[in-house]
Amino acid sequence: MTHTLVFGGARSGKSAHAERLATQSGKEVIYLATARAGDGEMATRIAHHRDQRPAVWPTVEEPLALADTLQRLSTPANLILVDCLTLWLTNLMFSEGGDYPDVGDIALPARFHRERARLLELLPALPGDVVFVSNEVGMGIVPYGAISRCFTDEAGRLNQAVAAVCDRVTFVAAGLPLHLKGGPC
Amino acid sequence: MTHTLVFGGARSGKSAHAERLATQSGKEVIYLATARAGDGEMATRIAHHRDQRPAVWPTVEEPLALADTLQRLSTPANLILVDCLTLWLTNLMFSEGGDYPDVGDIALPARFHRERARLLELLPALPGDVVFVSNEVGMGIVPYGAISRCFTDEAGRLNQAVAAVCDRVTFVAAGLPLHLKGGPC
Amino acid sequence: MTHTLVFGGARSGKSAHAERLATQSGKEVIYLATARAGDGEMATRIAHHRDQRPAVWPTVEEPLALADTLQRLSTPANLILVDCLTLWLTNLMFSEGGDYPDVGDIALPARFHRERARLLELLPALPGDVVFVSNEVGMGIVPYGAISRCFTDEAGRLNQAVAAVCDRVTFVAAGLPLHLKGGPC
Repeated sequence: MTHTLVFGGARSGKSAHAERLATQSGKEVIYLATARAGDGEMATRIAHHRDQRPAVWPTVEEPLALADTLQRLSTPANLILVDCLTLWLTNLMFSEGGDYPDVGDIALPARFHRERARLLELLPALPGDVVFVSNEVGMGIVPYGAISRCFTDEAGRLNQAVAAVCDRVTFVAAGLPLHLKGGPC
Repeated sequence: MTHTLVFGGARSGKSAHAERLATQSGKEVIYLATARAGDGEMATRIAHHRDQRPAVWPTVEEPLALADTLQRLSTPANLILVDCLTLWLTNLMFSEGGDYPDVGDIALPARFHRERARLLELLPALPGDVVFVSNEVGMGIVPYGAISRCFTDEAGRLNQAVAAVCDRVTFVAAGLPLHLKGGPC
Repeated sequence: MTHTLVFGGARSGKSAHAERLATQSGKEVIYLATARAGDGEMATRIAHHRDQRPAVWPTVEEPLALADTLQRLSTPANLILVDCLTLWLTNLMFSEGGDYPDVGDIALPARFHRERARLLELLPALPGDVVFVSNEVGMGIVPYGAISRCFTDEAGRLNQAVAAVCDRVTFVAAGLPLHLKGGPC
């Protein structure tokens, strides 16, 4: 089994690259979507992504319980494409309302810490292939608002932690892959 | 003929790298500036860029009709340095006023879609060398305001689309090039 | 002596990578912190960084006079780890109050220019090893506010200038190093 992290900026082509990896694996692919079609803009983005990927892949939507879902679905014969970790993190941060102050310390929900820890613990033990898609969000200026800074920190920390336990890590920019770990795929 | 995309963050040294490529080509260089010196700050930035490049290069200013201008000027003997695609995109987005709402769907001007499609269609057929400079803007947190998100999306999509039809793609950070496509230049 | 720049986004793992380089050098390490524990959030960040690094390293705090401090402390037997250049730049920008306008030209303090020039002039002459940590902040959308744009510009320019006089330059993303200059370390 191979665990892969594909990350990059907005509209970097990271999802398309992850989908190519999934197709090339020759395995049965399950698409695990973490997005929730809340407002009109997000619904448009989800529809755009759906149009890009093979219609034959079954889609499972799970905004929060990522580790449980991976454990339930992963088999040596399949590859689960998780798109994306950053939205999952956002969902967890706002899973208990998320009325955060603009300044001062941010107390994230207990579930945030629990789900994150479970994913990192479970990952090395999953029997099948997994390809994670994630966003790089930390290369702009420090954002205004404590929750934005907290999100930037947590997204960066998660990328580091997932990269550390993945076999392959690929950074994507302008649609082109750059292999940071595990060589060309 | 060689078509090259040089992209990177703000003050990454991408323009200087593109100018080195132009100089090293040994071809006659035409500088195609897409900036409009609207306010004082932009005028300062334009002057700064002008001071950096060889005074001998003729400069053509074209904020909108990029494909037409390239088609008119490109010959097997020359290299056109386009600086930059991101400003051109901005100019097109605001070419019909651009009084965009903060939330909801953004309807871009018809000219935006037309000019963009023409550039991508024309590029493979241009007889001379072209070096495009572009910005990476998608690696910070998702910006506030629908038009900023739309711009981030369109800038990322354009980088992907131009990279796909270029022979060489180079990412620049801290003044140093990283070749993503087409090997060392 | 080897001078190294390690840069990357927020929570990219750049400090941890720089600390590994310092440990692997086998030299006596001095940690030069440029942060000022102004508010509670910054104090938390500083404490987090302190917990990550070897307690045996002596720490020197210097928010402004970086070149003087490096000159005073650097010896052929030691390595000074400077974390980080971006905060030092921020400290200098606000060293004389920093009540900057939202639009128009920004006049930075004379000390900003003086300290910056001194660092770049001194660096090649330092007898010992130095590892600089710095932030990439220019890959998001252009920020609102003239001072934020000025900061983005100055941070990018400093990274370029320091990279040009360093022997090794490493970009870090998701905790993984990418060597832009000077080969694998």
